[in-house]
Amino acid sequence: MFRHTDYLQFDVKPEKADPVYARKLQELIGGAYGEMTVTMQYLFQGWNCRMEGKYKDLIMDIATEEIGHVEMLATMVARLLEGAPATESTKAAAADPVVAAVMGGMDPQQAIVAGGGAMPQDSNGVPWNGRYIVASGNLLADFRANVAAEAQGRLQTARLYNMTDDPGVKAMLKFNLARDTHHQNLWLAAIEELQADGLEGVVAPNALLDEEATEHATDLWHLSDGEFSSSGGWANRLAPDGARQMGFLADPQPLGNKASAPAPDPKLYATYDGAKGDPASAALGTEKGMMGKIKDALDPDET
Amino acid sequence: MFRHTDYLQFDVKPEKADPVYARKLQELIGGAYGEMTVTMQYLFQGWNCRMEGKYKDLIMDIATEEIGHVEMLATMVARLLEGAPATESTKAAAADPVVAAVMGGMDPQQAIVAGGGAMPQDSNGVPWNGRYIVASGNLLADFRANVAAEAQGRLQTARLYNMTDDPGVKAMLKFNLARDTHHQNLWLAAIEELQADGLEGVVAPNALLDEEATEHATDLWHLSDGEFSSSGGWANRLAPDGARQMGFLADPQPLGNKASAPAPDPKLYATYDGAKGDPASAALGTEKGMMGKIKDALDPDET
Amino acid sequence: MFRHTDYLQFDVKPEKADPVYARKLQELIGGAYGEMTVTMQYLFQGWNCRMEGKYKDLIMDIATEEIGHVEMLATMVARLLEGAPATESTKAAAADPVVAAVMGGMDPQQAIVAGGGAMPQDSNGVPWNGRYIVASGNLLADFRANVAAEAQGRLQTARLYNMTDDPGVKAMLKFNLARDTHHQNLWLAAIEELQADGLEGVVAPNALLDEEATEHATDLWHLSDGEFSSSGGWANRLAPDGARQMGFLADPQPLGNKASAPAPDPKLYATYDGAKGDPASAALGTEKGMMGKIKDALDPDET
Amino acid sequence: MFRHTDYLQFDVKPEKADPVYARKLQELIGGAYGEMTVTMQYLFQGWNCRMEGKYKDLIMDIATEEIGHVEMLATMVARLLEGAPATESTKAAAADPVVAAVMGGMDPQQAIVAGGGAMPQDSNGVPWNGRYIVASGNLLADFRANVAAEAQGRLQTARLYNMTDDPGVKAMLKFNLARDTHHQNLWLAAIEELQADGLEGVVAPNALLDEEATEHATDLWHLSDGEFSSSGGWANRLAPDGARQMGFLADPQPLGNKASAPAPDPKLYATYDGAKGDPASAALGTEKGMMGKIKDALDPDET
Amino acid sequence: MFRHTDYLQFDVKPEKADPVYARKLQELIGGAYGEMTVTMQYLFQGWNCRMEGKYKDLIMDIATEEIGHVEMLATMVARLLEGAPATESTKAAAADPVVAAVMGGMDPQQAIVAGGGAMPQDSNGVPWNGRYIVASGNLLADFRANVAAEAQGRLQTARLYNMTDDPGVKAMLKFNLARDTHHQNLWLAAIEELQADGLEGVVAPNALLDEEATEHATDLWHLSDGEFSSSGGWANRLAPDGARQMGFLADPQPLGNKASAPAPDPKLYATYDGAKGDPASAALGTEKGMMGKIKDALDPDET
Amino acid sequence: MFRHTDYLQFDVKPEKADPVYARKLQELIGGAYGEMTVTMQYLFQGWNCRMEGKYKDLIMDIATEEIGHVEMLATMVARLLEGAPATESTKAAAADPVVAAVMGGMDPQQAIVAGGGAMPQDSNGVPWNGRYIVASGNLLADFRANVAAEAQGRLQTARLYNMTDDPGVKAMLKFNLARDTHHQNLWLAAIEELQADGLEGVVAPNALLDEEATEHATDLWHLSDGEFSSSGGWANRLAPDGARQMGFLADPQPLGNKASAPAPDPKLYATYDGAKGDPASAALGTEKGMMGKIKDALDPDET
Repeated sequence: MFRHTDYLQFDVKPEKADPVYARKLQELIGGAYGEMTVTMQYLFQGWNCRMEGKYKDLIMDIATEEIGHVEMLATMVARLLEGAPATESTKAAAADPVVAAVMGGMDPQQAIVAGGGAMPQDSNGVPWNGRYIVASGNLLADFRANVAAEAQGRLQTARLYNMTDDPGVKAMLKFNLARDTHHQNLWLAAIEELQADGLEGVVAPNALLDEEATEHATDLWHLSDGEFSSSGGWANRLAPDGARQMGFLADPQPLGNKASAPAPDPKLYATYDGAKGDPASAALGTEKGMMGKIKDALDPDET
Repeated sequence: MFRHTDYLQFDVKPEKADPVYARKLQELIGGAYGEMTVTMQYLFQGWNCRMEGKYKDLIMDIATEEIGHVEMLATMVARLLEGAPATESTKAAAADPVVAAVMGGMDPQQAIVAGGGAMPQDSNGVPWNGRYIVASGNLLADFRANVAAEAQGRLQTARLYNMTDDPGVKAMLKFNLARDTHHQNLWLAAIEELQADGLEGVVAPNALLDEEATEHATDLWHLSDGEFSSSGGWANRLAPDGARQMGFLADPQPLGNKASAPAPDPKLYATYDGAKGDPASAALGTEKGMMGKIKDALDPDET
Repeated sequence: MFRHTDYLQFDVKPEKADPVYARKLQELIGGAYGEMTVTMQYLFQGWNCRMEGKYKDLIMDIATEEIGHVEMLATMVARLLEGAPATESTKAAAADPVVAAVMGGMDPQQAIVAGGGAMPQDSNGVPWNGRYIVASGNLLADFRANVAAEAQGRLQTARLYNMTDDPGVKAMLKFNLARDTHHQNLWLAAIEELQADGLEGVVAPNALLDEEATEHATDLWHLSDGEFSSSGGWANRLAPDGARQMGFLADPQPLGNKASAPAPDPKLYATYDGAKGDPASAALGTEKGMMGKIKDALDPDET
Repeated sequence: MFRHTDYLQFDVKPEKADPVYARKLQELIGGAYGEMTVTMQYLFQGWNCRMEGKYKDLIMDIATEEIGHVEMLATMVARLLEGAPATESTKAAAADPVVAAVMGGMDPQQAIVAGGGAMPQDSNGVPWNGRYIVASGNLLADFRANVAAEAQGRLQTARLYNMTDDPGVKAMLKFNLARDTHHQNLWLAAIEELQADGLEGVVAPNALLDEEATEHATDLWHLSDGEFSSSGGWANRLAPDGARQMGFLADPQPLGNKASAPAPDPKLYATYDGAKGDPASAALGTEKGMMGKIKDALDPDET
Repeated sequence: MFRHTDYLQFDVKPEKADPVYARKLQELIGGAYGEMTVTMQYLFQGWNCRMEGKYKDLIMDIATEEIGHVEMLATMVARLLEGAPATESTKAAAADPVVAAVMGGMDPQQAIVAGGGAMPQDSNGVPWNGRYIVASGNLLADFRANVAAEAQGRLQTARLYNMTDDPGVKAMLKFNLARDTHHQNLWLAAIEELQADGLEGVVAPNALLDEEATEHATDLWHLSDGEFSSSGGWANRLAPDGARQMGFLADPQPLGNKASAPAPDPKLYATYDGAKGDPASAALGTEKGMMGKIKDALDPDET
Repeated sequence: MFRHTDYLQFDVKPEKADPVYARKLQELIGGAYGEMTVTMQYLFQGWNCRMEGKYKDLIMDIATEEIGHVEMLATMVARLLEGAPATESTKAAAADPVVAAVMGGMDPQQAIVAGGGAMPQDSNGVPWNGRYIVASGNLLADFRANVAAEAQGRLQTARLYNMTDDPGVKAMLKFNLARDTHHQNLWLAAIEELQADGLEGVVAPNALLDEEATEHATDLWHLSDGEFSSSGGWANRLAPDGARQMGFLADPQPLGNKASAPAPDPKLYATYDGAKGDPASAALGTEKGMMGKIKDALDPDET
């Protein structure tokens, strides 16, 4: 269960309106690596965590913080839109190229749909969606996704930091940059601890390592003609998992047969010359199983 | 420019058809962490890479391999659908619960739309889309996303490995597991090398570290009441970036003022009691700038 | 079955082209509350209506009108784009900031894809989709969605009305505003009549009211620290459904236990310390049922 | 800023696993009218509310409650999946039709992607997205959308209530039904209060009522041949807004001219016979304005 | 403007319910090549058509027919769901594998969301969206898309025809197959007539044929190692446009330089070793143009 | 399996940066008819092709070429963004209307997300998705879709050709136009050859032509009041398939009964007056079948 205070985690007071920038900030709200993503990603990871204790509590602490980041950014967007020329008529825009440029560069839905507020979408107006998040239950795989998300998030924040001169906006972004730095450190530290606690290894998941085709788990296949991929350490070093030597396959050849689709079911009307013969007819569910035997016994005519 | 050989990277010969499993394999083709994602993610990263040399060549080698993985999986799906009861009539399904179950569990579009083939979508039939990938130009941020993608991909492959008994399918998945293991090692090695080469640090991007609000870059805010998040190493250790001591803020308080949206533009018809006064009217683009001064000088009446 | 006349329901003659406004009008065509939404929402409601008679006929009358509204707006967009500088070269745009602003503010797909026409998408270019509509079969729930849609639609139309000076555009919008006013009245009147006819009550659906946990159907839970939510009438009045007194829970406490996910299936590779023991193994479909008994009787070795 | 307690708002303990039902519950999590929608809808409405006081505080109280509802449902889904035959091999499914049916009816991503947990998507696996919500700043329009959302939500919950026998699931749904009943009452009461406070009227927005084409704001256009739409009260009564008499237009005729697109820009390559003459060339932004005059004065040759 | 009659274009009376088939029929309603697509595609083509006369009238005739096809299919779906075990409890499903199979194979939203009706989505529950249609203004390009849509539509209808034994369903599909046959003929005839009327040629658009790089408009590039692509007529015949001889490039070599991204803007934080020097700084909009000269003249210090 | 060379198929060297044009080029990369679409469409068609030989090899040759076209366009976009004022601060934009216009017209994600590179999305920023492609297995239906895709693609390329003066961009587009011309010719030639080889006819699929309702496969239904659709050849000529005479139905009447939804399941809570009686209860899966008989025999009380 959640509780809310009306006070923001950090101040969000722009010096003046900037509706074009308000559009760009949408990337940090509803973009694939925006705050809605980390909010929902961490919430679902926490709810789906299979162990009580420090990892779950860490996830829920940060998840709860992130909801407040969406709040900060949404409030900032509303303030950046104050006094924006959203409803200036066409005539004003035609007369003044700066008005025209500003109105052309705005997110029109911030005015038409939200009445001067933020939307749950990115800087191109594409709505946030649930496929942006991952919560797999495997904490190594998920914490890596979290490090990646915080890295992309801080990168985008840094880029946006250079696109404004507003000291109020910059103050908020400095706070966000700092939190993104700390969150990168937190998830990296948590990965180290997962491994130190013996819960996970280097490769995710820490399973099937003997069962996989280990002879294919060592070499980089050289399939593009750039000549330098063999000069990286990865072409000849002990692998990060410590379990194998990394190598380089300079002239890789296909190991499989020709790709081909089987003869088609004639009632699906694929174009077909018959060269592969008739399609197979026995398949899972059509073959005789236990149930078929019972049916045959009771009423052999009905099948 | 690309070239193609008809031979598959590895063999894909199921022992028999399994249309329900063919649906599940769609997750590895068109899911958020499927092969279409890593294909497009690595291609765009390579095309957008700002340095010639080993990193770009590594990216393009792996990207090119991944197109072939989509090919393998699509071919496997077509073969798993051979002889599937796609066009069995309703009567047959009603008579035999196994046929009904199989037909109910299939992806109907594999039959109706693709005529017994794979689709560029996930196991729930949601189409693959371009927001699944990231190619930011920052190699540290991107390689972390690559490690995360390979980890989620191997995890999903491992789960699917346990959902089949077909030795042919298992053979292909063993190959895929091995490549996913190696690709995790490759991206981890590349991250180490980026840092060793002095091109990136621990925090992405390696910039604005002094300019951000460093006093907020050290503490975990305890916002959920689980009592164990302070017991992780992350609550009191040197941060992974080596630049600061990590701490724990046990009773965090908001640092900002109350969240509130400003007075609205009356022509946007927000419900408003007037308590905040009139909305601001001067905004970026409406104030007098250079152009305004010229206009005033030439024709002061026209504004 | 439908018939069409080439004559528009109302005139759509802009005085002059305005390509930036043509983009904004897309919100009324393909936005979440645009005319495509009410068209499809009412059509599916009508087709799915379970009673012949006045309600179904009302729905189909309005649904059929709305197709004509999409037509009006699409035609208006094409006319607003006439003479737009869609194919002016870059050089012209660079030389004239107003041309640049206009071209920057246009929907590029109206030129590149539609050749100077409307698209089935909103003002940010996001395509209309079928999840925007609802047709549940419960007319109270659906008519409320219709009132809401007409209210949002009229609100957006009113905002757009203030963004143009073109008398032709304004004339069309005056017609649309009037129809949206009337449609709000119509759906509100229809809701009153549903209740007067005894077909529905105040709460939708009019069912399970005794079976639900009625002790939790009366109080507002105070979970945000704003101090005024208790000062609304809703904190102490007879509920609109006339069936209960509304109250205020000033200091709500969780009624449930701790949230936790159960022990995981080991073959799904969640990170797990074993503290919850082994996962459950009996589940729907795996337990022995009638069929299992038959199988056991016939061939106990084969399971 | 938000805080979280690990205790759930209400208990969620299913008696036993039911993976098919776990899929259906996704509709209440990530469907268009699920708990993610009301969570985000109310949060954005609260953040975008233009008045401090009881309305904003009401919105934030309910918004904060709804995050906890997502939590309850996500936890319930994880528990319903415990012991589900997610990784049973194909052989087991082929042998037992009930296992096959269960596995066919599951959401495959709950196993493959989430490792036995909930996903932010609906019962067909389509991800939740930000276009599901509306927060317009006009409280009448938004509260109507809220009533509609709670009505659809309670309707779907009631349907799901009839699809299970599990007493634990039914207990949670009884709580949810009660909250949905109360929330419908709350938003209806808030609408009454908005009107009583003189902040809004019956038609949203309460503006442009004189400026719209009032002669078209009274009649139902009879465009479908069902004969009963004239027999509803709406064909002849005082309108709910009290401002006009409602009527019925039995044989409506188009008021506009023929729909037609204008002559095309030849560089857009529309198929065109030239019958409408050449396309217009002067448009907003290309006509001579102030800037053009300056340019002409300075360098008449350069245009 | 449109009018509607309650009578269906053709009868839709299934002999009995079949909820699994009701799901499959969704492909013909809201799939990428379903009736919603051709409805909207033809409507937007008609509204955007630049010539009055036979082509526009043909488009509008067929468009109007297609709305009625959505109606037929939606009605059929509602009837196929009558008596479907949508609200049967879990216990019934667990006891009877056929009930379980049917419920597992249904579209859950047809019950939970639509209350036993059709939805605007495809057979996997993915909502119809506006990107499925094209209306470019070029009639040759669009009529080809129409032929393609009718061909895919008839193909899917034919596949679905083989998936049912219900004589009522088959009767409706026989009508739909016939209309799809006729519509293919109609669009093919219209293409012939466009060319006979001299409005379009063989290549769309009929323009820039001299300006394009004609030396690259004749050869098939052999980039995949299958050996038979040179044995088709297309490797050595007069092209269908009658304007050039078609050839085969057996060993194609890249004509361009190495792909490479330019030096990055340092404030975008791409990983960069400086090898390409500093990034360019003069770009469209930053260089001194007319406006810059004016500004310099008036206030040289301010730039 | 695929291989890659770093050399581009054709040169892509813009003379100077043009970030607004870089946004427009996204349509050719990730639009519904962009290069990602033809790449994936042809790849899936090739993988799903049921015949070895010339058709499959043709498809794979062109598919492999198209991957290289995405590469060319992505590289061009990166070069067009070089030196773009992506990170110019707000102050610069406010001072210079051309800078403002350029920044307003850019795709903000090309800077914020991609760091100055291309994205897998269209010119409105909507991500490419898998529903854009079709690969049905029926080569006639698919090759028609390919002709349509190449026609729309060339049309969009031609429009973009007129939107730039940059000789480097124009050179690349001249190459693309030529390839699109050739690909239209190729697919048209392949369709002729499919028919000459006797593999397909004129109507797709070449099946069920006798079984469909042939009496409805000949007439255009005149459902829109434009008076010229009867004047086209299609109203009175031999059909393109050579199998029937085409006609015109001037005053078409519905052939079906009234559309109506059946009586609803009461537990789905549709609004219902009972006039249609009780809903049907026997449906597929609930009736007694073989399994029911077995159950009855074993335990007649349990049903």
